[in-house]
Amino acid sequence: MLKINKNYQKIKKNYIFTEISNKKDKYLKENQKAKIIDLGIGDVTLPLGKNLVKVMEKALAEQAHRSTFKGYPPENGYDFLKDQIIKYYKRRNVELNRKDVFVSNGACCDVTNILDLFNKNTTVIANPTYPAYFDSNFLQGNSIILESASVQNDFVLNPKNLNKKSYLIYLCSPNNPTGTVFSKNQLKQWVDFALKTKSIIIFDCAYESFIDDVKLPHFIYEIPGAKNCAVEIASFSKMAGFTNLRCSWTVVPTELKIGNQSLNNMWERRQCTKFNGVPYLVQKGAEYALSEEGFKECKKNIDYYKKNLKMLLKNLKEVGIETYSSQHTPYVWFKCPNKYTSWEFFDILLTQCQIVGIPGVGFGSAGEGFFRFSAFGRRKDIIEACKRLKKAHL
Amino acid sequence: MLKINKNYQKIKKNYIFTEISNKKDKYLKENQKAKIIDLGIGDVTLPLGKNLVKVMEKALAEQAHRSTFKGYPPENGYDFLKDQIIKYYKRRNVELNRKDVFVSNGACCDVTNILDLFNKNTTVIANPTYPAYFDSNFLQGNSIILESASVQNDFVLNPKNLNKKSYLIYLCSPNNPTGTVFSKNQLKQWVDFALKTKSIIIFDCAYESFIDDVKLPHFIYEIPGAKNCAVEIASFSKMAGFTNLRCSWTVVPTELKIGNQSLNNMWERRQCTKFNGVPYLVQKGAEYALSEEGFKECKKNIDYYKKNLKMLLKNLKEVGIETYSSQHTPYVWFKCPNKYTSWEFFDILLTQCQIVGIPGVGFGSAGEGFFRFSAFGRRKDIIEACKRLKKAHL
Repeated sequence: MLKINKNYQKIKKNYIFTEISNKKDKYLKENQKAKIIDLGIGDVTLPLGKNLVKVMEKALAEQAHRSTFKGYPPENGYDFLKDQIIKYYKRRNVELNRKDVFVSNGACCDVTNILDLFNKNTTVIANPTYPAYFDSNFLQGNSIILESASVQNDFVLNPKNLNKKSYLIYLCSPNNPTGTVFSKNQLKQWVDFALKTKSIIIFDCAYESFIDDVKLPHFIYEIPGAKNCAVEIASFSKMAGFTNLRCSWTVVPTELKIGNQSLNNMWERRQCTKFNGVPYLVQKGAEYALSEEGFKECKKNIDYYKKNLKMLLKNLKEVGIETYSSQHTPYVWFKCPNKYTSWEFFDILLTQCQIVGIPGVGFGSAGEGFFRFSAFGRRKDIIEACKRLKKAHL
Repeated sequence: MLKINKNYQKIKKNYIFTEISNKKDKYLKENQKAKIIDLGIGDVTLPLGKNLVKVMEKALAEQAHRSTFKGYPPENGYDFLKDQIIKYYKRRNVELNRKDVFVSNGACCDVTNILDLFNKNTTVIANPTYPAYFDSNFLQGNSIILESASVQNDFVLNPKNLNKKSYLIYLCSPNNPTGTVFSKNQLKQWVDFALKTKSIIIFDCAYESFIDDVKLPHFIYEIPGAKNCAVEIASFSKMAGFTNLRCSWTVVPTELKIGNQSLNNMWERRQCTKFNGVPYLVQKGAEYALSEEGFKECKKNIDYYKKNLKMLLKNLKEVGIETYSSQHTPYVWFKCPNKYTSWEFFDILLTQCQIVGIPGVGFGSAGEGFFRFSAFGRRKDIIEACKRLKKAHL
């Protein structure tokens, strides 16, 4: 018989979204007039910017004419987009070259597919964090160390409890769901640890455009030595509203090696064998999003979501709920009141406020007793949600 | 130290395209006025159809408005496209349901990523064929049996020489580069073999839209029993000119199991963990391409390329070259005259005719002494290439 990857049998089904949707459906059936406000899913709701759409329309029109039609995109991105990304890093004094940059169709793909380059290793993952890190490492058969980032350590992951071994280390900053951002010093501890232990950091900065404080690092390469120990994965999804269009980039510095093996060469080989690039019109849109003018357009939407965030934080505090998010994230992370478990509070919110959020325990066991709201909703829904929270007896 | 996937060190670099481009550049440097005709790369050259572009423009416009904006696409495709694909199979009397169909961003990704579901196995691959099968299996650490499909067996792969073991079996029909199409009987031999040996066939039908004979199977599920032993991977790339837009589909029938493990469930888990879907506007374009009206538009382009193919085949025959392609492919596969090796003939073609093609040996050792022309070029280039071939002394 053919041998299958048995980890698929062993992995737990992720019931959380099914469970949420079942509970929601049941409630709606019993309360047909209820107007539920969904603050659950972390997906943008504002439409693409007008000028961005114009740029994409033009790119689409090029595909309708013989003289401008383009076939296969370069597997790792058009130079025009790579150059724009390189410029984007220069603002933070990080120097990259075209060979370092790989355009891809989503951070989710790259944080998981990067494991193709490795054999079985031990992976360090924050608890709680984005579930795809755990799932993909589990499916790959890696050993996993879950490092708790909770109230005790201000939700900031720290390498001090780890043995001095070589690890794959997933860091997400600003972290989903806790909203924690590493300071330069905190991130430096990780870079130093990785250099010392010959570990590789996979740095997910999908939410870096939400960082508002110039002193906080957006990219891991702002830390000296990081090019020798870190891969960085970034995305247009939340920055420019590209969750549907699918575009991201990954930096694998040419400096990055394990023994004498260049990870850059390996990733290039992987992508050229198993991936065929991102559409021209999407890359033209992405190029525009990073331009000075385009970024202003994106920033308007980011600011809109951050105003939502502030409203939610303020109102939760006013009803006596302890919140932990920074201002540099689209997610509100808070403690369930009265020592409720995550799911208990889910039910209370649904029945008392007709609000749906995500139980913190869905991001890892250390998220138990916490809860996540997304600030990606529409303003009127956020305002209404705040009103309901204030009226309710939580 | 971290353990890396050592197969990346062992895999041979695929120098063929670099080598071709080096030779071309050198020739152009020495012959600055030469007008080289490129019949090498298998990439479409005709622009997207006008109506298809209109459909996509409309879908893009929807993304610019609050009320119609869409975020994350469903990981495995919108139902509207799945339903259109299901209809497309009905024309050939194959019944599928939505759960069987997975929309993806390229056949190249799926023929290689499907290996995630397996552990180390023995894989059967045709020689010559599309190189990504070999490369991805090699990188995965699978044992590989290369089954020669050459003049001796009319380039048709046959299971009769294989031991009765369980294999992963890659079949491509119409095959790239040889253009061979399996008849129903020939394909039935493979399905029967797979059912008997509990093998899994990965059937790549990326070129099925080029099949002109109603008696030839487009899809492996036209063969009884195939749903219990085959995954099928299809693409909009060559059918609708989507090489840049990136859209494909994979069928993993719910019936398909290894032991008691459903491959359909495993693939769904894989895609939902490591992939985030295809853009709405691309899927709307794909839906249109498979509609009755849209398919007519696509068919015009296919017919254009096939007219190119016929011209190339006719002219090669007229200069005494033995061709082997069927009429059901965009590729001309022929024997190099005078027992030239593939690379010898490459040089002769370049210097005598200023034509670039692909040495057959690039698709596997059994391709030595053969050569591939792509018929995806523009008509005027094909006409000029034919003229040059006739004038030359090959």
